[in-house]
Amino acid sequence: MRKWEENVKKVVPYTPGEQPQKKGIIKLNTNECPYPPSPLVEKKIKEMAYEDLRLYPEFPEKTQLAAELAAYHQVSEEEIFIGVGSDDVLSMAFLTFFQAGKPILFPDITYSFYDVWADVYGIPFQTKALAEDFTINPEDYLADNGGVIFPNPNAPTGTLLCLEDVEKIVAANQDVVVIVDEAYIDFGGISALPLLKKYENLLVVRTFSKSRAMAGARIGYAVGSAKLISYLNNVKYSVNSYTMNRPSLELGVEAVKDDAYFKEICGRIIATRTRTEERLKSLGFTFPKSYGNFIFAAHREVKAGYIFEKLKEYDIYVRHWEKERISNYLRITIGTDEEMDALFRALREIIK
Amino acid sequence: MRKWEENVKKVVPYTPGEQPQKKGIIKLNTNECPYPPSPLVEKKIKEMAYEDLRLYPEFPEKTQLAAELAAYHQVSEEEIFIGVGSDDVLSMAFLTFFQAGKPILFPDITYSFYDVWADVYGIPFQTKALAEDFTINPEDYLADNGGVIFPNPNAPTGTLLCLEDVEKIVAANQDVVVIVDEAYIDFGGISALPLLKKYENLLVVRTFSKSRAMAGARIGYAVGSAKLISYLNNVKYSVNSYTMNRPSLELGVEAVKDDAYFKEICGRIIATRTRTEERLKSLGFTFPKSYGNFIFAAHREVKAGYIFEKLKEYDIYVRHWEKERISNYLRITIGTDEEMDALFRALREIIK
Repeated sequence: MRKWEENVKKVVPYTPGEQPQKKGIIKLNTNECPYPPSPLVEKKIKEMAYEDLRLYPEFPEKTQLAAELAAYHQVSEEEIFIGVGSDDVLSMAFLTFFQAGKPILFPDITYSFYDVWADVYGIPFQTKALAEDFTINPEDYLADNGGVIFPNPNAPTGTLLCLEDVEKIVAANQDVVVIVDEAYIDFGGISALPLLKKYENLLVVRTFSKSRAMAGARIGYAVGSAKLISYLNNVKYSVNSYTMNRPSLELGVEAVKDDAYFKEICGRIIATRTRTEERLKSLGFTFPKSYGNFIFAAHREVKAGYIFEKLKEYDIYVRHWEKERISNYLRITIGTDEEMDALFRALREIIK
Repeated sequence: MRKWEENVKKVVPYTPGEQPQKKGIIKLNTNECPYPPSPLVEKKIKEMAYEDLRLYPEFPEKTQLAAELAAYHQVSEEEIFIGVGSDDVLSMAFLTFFQAGKPILFPDITYSFYDVWADVYGIPFQTKALAEDFTINPEDYLADNGGVIFPNPNAPTGTLLCLEDVEKIVAANQDVVVIVDEAYIDFGGISALPLLKKYENLLVVRTFSKSRAMAGARIGYAVGSAKLISYLNNVKYSVNSYTMNRPSLELGVEAVKDDAYFKEICGRIIATRTRTEERLKSLGFTFPKSYGNFIFAAHREVKAGYIFEKLKEYDIYVRHWEKERISNYLRITIGTDEEMDALFRALREIIK
C-alpha cells in the first residue's frame, strides 16, 4: 500500500440490487413500480426547454417542486427538504442530526444502508432485534440514545408499526432526532406526518422511486419542522448547492400534480399484492403481512437461495440476502398481474 | 435551544451566486455558457423513453456516460468517476482522500467551496496566499501536508498555472492526494491529464456546467488512477448509490459525442473574451490574463461594489465578494457578443 492510501477513508459500500441489462426479463428485485410515471410527466418531457439546460437549476432554497410538495402535504415550503432520492435525504440527515457521539438505534433487519451511512460518517450505532414475526418492539427504542431511525413499513420485511407505537418512540426521544423512513408508506400504511404538529424533532422521509414510479428521476424529500429542515439545508448547502437537476425538478412537479394517477397505480399494486399473497400461501410460502410494494416470503420446504437462483433461469429476478435470520427469505416486488402470473408459473415448477 | 439541537452539525454553508428569476436580464454572474447545449442533446430529450423513468438508472459502476468519457480521454472506464456536478465530485473527494488529520493546502483566493467542505467533514486546512498578481506560487505547496487542491485555471481569478508547475506540486506530494480542479480548463488552459500516466495520486476534476453548456443537468467527473477512483467509488456507494438520474446520464452522452459543437462554442467564448479584455482595458479596468469563461477585473478609480450595484439597475448581474484582497474586483462571465455590448454600454455610463 502506497503512503497516500493510508489516509484514504475505507468503507464497505452498500450493495444495491442487480440491474441486469438483459432485455425482456421480469424485474422484481428493486421495488420499482411496474407502471410508468403520470402522463403529465411524458407531456412535460416533450415540452422541456432544452436551451435552459445551459443554466443552473432553480435556486435550491426556493423551487416549484418544494412549493408543490408543501401544498400537497399542507405544510410550508420551509418544512420541505428535497434530495437525490431518499438515499440522499437520509445520508444528509445522518450527517446533520446524528452527531451526539452516542449510539443511534435501528432494527437489526432493516434497510441495509443505515449501517453504511453510520460507518461512513463515523456514527456509533446499536441494532435492536425485531420480534420473531419481524415486528418492531417500540419498547426497544426508549432507552438513552443518539437518535432513532426506522422505515415504516419496514424493509425488507414489509411490516407496519401502528401510529400509536410510532408516537410512543417519537415522544420518548424528544432530546434527539427521530427519522421515520416512509419509502413504502403509500401502499397501505398510516403516515407519521400528522405527528409533525406535535414534535419538532421528527423527520419523515419519502421517495418518488416507488409509489410515484420515478426511480430513474432520483427524487426524495423530507418533511419536518422548519428548524429541523433549516439545519439539514445548511449541511446540504455545504456539500453541493445544486443536487437536483432541471429535468428532475420539472418532472417531479408534474408527478405531484397528478394525484388521481398516483392513487390509481398505488391501488392497482395493492390489489395485485393481495392476489399475490393468496397464491404464495397456496404454494406453501409464509410471510408477514406486507404494507409495501413487495412481499418478504419463505417457503416451508424449499430453500430461498435455491428458488432465487432457479428463478433467474426463468429470467425472473427477485432479491435474496445471505444474512442471518433472513437467508431463507425472498423479497419479491409486486409487478403487474401478468408478471406475477409468470412468477407463479415458474414457482410452481421450481417447488413441485 | 432544545436539547436535540445541541447535537446537530452546525456549518456555514457555501453561498452560490444569485439566480434572479426576473426574465430578460443579462446573467454574467455564475459562469454559465451563453450558448445552448449541443443539438444532439435537444434531439435526445425528444426521444427519451419516458416509461423507463420508473426504473432505476444504469448501474452506477458501468454507465454509457463513463464509457464515452473514457473513450474521449483515452483512459479506461475504471479511471472515471461521475458525480452531480463537479461539486459532488469534489465533496466526495474531500471526504475520501483528505483524512490524514494534517492540514490540506489551497490558495487563499480560490473556489469558496473548499473551506466549506473542509469544515463540514472536519478536515484541517491551511491557505497559501496568491502572489500580488494572483498567481499561485508552486513552492508554497511543497511542505508537509494532508493533501493539496487548487483550481487550474484558478477561480475567480482566471490565472493559469503552467503544466511544469502543476507537475512540480504533484511530484512533491506523492504521499497525499493532489486534486486539480479543471472546471475552466477548456477555455485555453493546459490540462494536467497527461500527468496521470506518471502519478497515481493525482485526481483531475471536470464539469459539464461551463464549457459543455449543461449547468442545469448537473454533471461532473474526475479522471484518476483506477486505484484512486475505486476508493472514491466506495465512499460514493456508501452515501448514495444512484446519484445520476436517467436524463442527465443520457443527455451527457450526447454532449460528449458532439465534439465539434463543443470546440466551436469554446472557441466563440475565447474570441469574445479577447474582445472583452480589450474593451475593459479601454475603460480603465485592470485584470490578470484570464484562461476561464470570465474576467476578474478591478477599475482604477470606481469601486467594484458601486459598479456591481449600478449594473443591476441595467438588469446586468455580475459577481462581487466582500472579501479581503478581492473586494474591489468583479467577476464577469463571458456572455454572447450582444450581451457584452450591453455590458459595455452600461459600464461606459456608470464609469464616466
